[in-house]
Amino acid sequence: MGLEEMWRDLAPVGRSTSTGGYFRQPWTSAEGELRAWFAEECAARGLSVETDGIGNQVAWWRPDGADGPGVLTGSHLDSVIDGGAYDGPLGVVSALAALDTIRERGTVPTRPIGIGVFVEEEGSRFGRACLGSRLVTGATTWEQARELTDREGVFLGDAVEAAGLDPTRGLLSLDGVGAFVELHVEQGRHLVDRDAAVGVASGIWPHGRWRFDFAGEANHAGTTRMEDRRDPMLTYAMTALAANKQARLAQQRATFGRIEVEPNGTNAVPSRVTAWLDARAESGEGLEALVGEVVRQAEQRAGRDGTRLEVTAESVSGAVHFDAGLGARLAALGGWPVLPTQAGHDAGILSEAGIPTAMLFVRNPTGVSHSPAESAETADCLAGVDALADVLEELAR
Amino acid sequence: MGLEEMWRDLAPVGRSTSTGGYFRQPWTSAEGELRAWFAEECAARGLSVETDGIGNQVAWWRPDGADGPGVLTGSHLDSVIDGGAYDGPLGVVSALAALDTIRERGTVPTRPIGIGVFVEEEGSRFGRACLGSRLVTGATTWEQARELTDREGVFLGDAVEAAGLDPTRGLLSLDGVGAFVELHVEQGRHLVDRDAAVGVASGIWPHGRWRFDFAGEANHAGTTRMEDRRDPMLTYAMTALAANKQARLAQQRATFGRIEVEPNGTNAVPSRVTAWLDARAESGEGLEALVGEVVRQAEQRAGRDGTRLEVTAESVSGAVHFDAGLGARLAALGGWPVLPTQAGHDAGILSEAGIPTAMLFVRNPTGVSHSPAESAETADCLAGVDALADVLEELAR
Repeated sequence: MGLEEMWRDLAPVGRSTSTGGYFRQPWTSAEGELRAWFAEECAARGLSVETDGIGNQVAWWRPDGADGPGVLTGSHLDSVIDGGAYDGPLGVVSALAALDTIRERGTVPTRPIGIGVFVEEEGSRFGRACLGSRLVTGATTWEQARELTDREGVFLGDAVEAAGLDPTRGLLSLDGVGAFVELHVEQGRHLVDRDAAVGVASGIWPHGRWRFDFAGEANHAGTTRMEDRRDPMLTYAMTALAANKQARLAQQRATFGRIEVEPNGTNAVPSRVTAWLDARAESGEGLEALVGEVVRQAEQRAGRDGTRLEVTAESVSGAVHFDAGLGARLAALGGWPVLPTQAGHDAGILSEAGIPTAMLFVRNPTGVSHSPAESAETADCLAGVDALADVLEELAR
Repeated sequence: MGLEEMWRDLAPVGRSTSTGGYFRQPWTSAEGELRAWFAEECAARGLSVETDGIGNQVAWWRPDGADGPGVLTGSHLDSVIDGGAYDGPLGVVSALAALDTIRERGTVPTRPIGIGVFVEEEGSRFGRACLGSRLVTGATTWEQARELTDREGVFLGDAVEAAGLDPTRGLLSLDGVGAFVELHVEQGRHLVDRDAAVGVASGIWPHGRWRFDFAGEANHAGTTRMEDRRDPMLTYAMTALAANKQARLAQQRATFGRIEVEPNGTNAVPSRVTAWLDARAESGEGLEALVGEVVRQAEQRAGRDGTRLEVTAESVSGAVHFDAGLGARLAALGGWPVLPTQAGHDAGILSEAGIPTAMLFVRNPTGVSHSPAESAETADCLAGVDALADVLEELAR
């Protein structure tokens, strides 16, 4: 299948007819369709796919004579809630297309080339980003992960089994992987600013998710005097504004994008507000200071509101510095600019696990991401495929 | 059935085992159980119940010789989401018990006495408070109401039919009602302050619900620079704080207790935040000024955030002044204090429709309402039954 056909096949899977956005949460039927699509694409290229016990997939191309540590590429197929078409799938489609390009060029690699798909990269269902790669590298254990619950209270272990997978079959092995290269649509506008279709990542900012549980007292919204309330919505609101201000001042990132309210009734002062802080900074110290200051201001306000605050770090990732030598070697191939990113990726997890890792970014004309409005131009996507083919040829010989 | 037995029968219906609160949303199985319970209680007293096309109920006691305009009492059985045991049911249980008391006393009223139950008083499912009484009095038409949708997008018309009711059968007639008296648990602490078990309401503050739709642009929470965002959560947060501040300054009430966020993902700047303002003030002018100022500040902030705001009044109720002569007559019966309330009630709707109306409040020791923690003491509930029996005897002779 060519590039256009692959996109055409993927276009309708898990897409909302109202927003145009994608709902490809892990271990749902949409994700099952994507897994089947990937297996078919690999089969059409004469590759057989290994699917592990939780749904991670890999297909290896081992031409005659190819041996030694392999070069793995690929990305993920799941989406955030109401996400875009490219975040994830672009890396998988480009990997398949790059393999076609290499074969068309007549190059025969002397090392195996693998294409991998990791599950729950976005953490949109169970709240742990890069869960598939974390499990594969051992950064998270199955015993920890299986007890995670989604918004409906479904255990991850049950969700995986309900998707027809068998966690007791074990996980992908990365033993034969000598290098990992992930291609991804850029999630900002650095490449637009630099007038480049393709870029190479230098590293990933430290980042994490913190759950803020604000507890107050449910009460009648009409009869309860303002001074008698213990309203956790107020503590939350001030915290959301404080987080934004701190991040702006320090050129960092802080976002409250998810909130759950109990009882969430128009005429009731809430008893509880739970909200999640997504925070990112250039350094680990900066991130710690940012989150610390937000928590400090939230606690101060909770004291004034008569509410209680509990903060739980749900996932914190330190700074990732991709293999500098590898990055320089790749950047030299096409004269591509080198830039950092604030977004987590499976590449970050594999890098942390000691695998020499690099990332290629493809220009995003608006910088919009995690949104139905996310876009990429065909010419840039084709440039990305060529770049990835060059990189794989370079690394697999 | 005596008072204790009635409470024992009601206790488990629609109760959450985790919070201990009640989930008696209209046209659900819990509410169906309550309707059946009411019919049984009436039957046990030799009264037959009329249930109208949407589930409002009334049972009339017409002793031999009783004629002329009747005295209606009663309340509602639905609850807010995760509400208390007394808000609504206390008025129905007390009405049944007061009828028993009158019969035990051997008094034979010369006018009919009716006990009514109105549906969707809380507006917890379809967002319109006092919907049953509004429909019965013609304040709202069925053509308007049937198109309302709940949080799952179910049309009210379909919900009513799914509950086994037939809206084409028409609504209760209030033609024979000469006066309406609703007993209700107090939702504040005025009676505690006055050391009284029972009080009489003078009127209801003007109040309403406004939907605030804040629209921005979904984006990646990590890679989107703070200055490039159009984040509706920030506009909402400032608005929630402003509403609280304005109400505090003017001794009014303003609450944002319900919010819906899209896509509501941890790592996405939201595309949209919808939140509901519940506002109440002593006068109509005060309410208008309060809401106007909150909207003004919200729009100003939206300009700074690059977001858009749309405000829709979902329901606005003007001031209700209960029949002053009737109130004075009742207060004189037991020397009960007279006080206003900030909460809407079916009694307000019937009063607006021109029916002489009064309300009795029963002391709430903590003032907590719309919460599983709502409470009332048995002695006060018994005092309420006696007071209601006195009132009915007074009005039905």
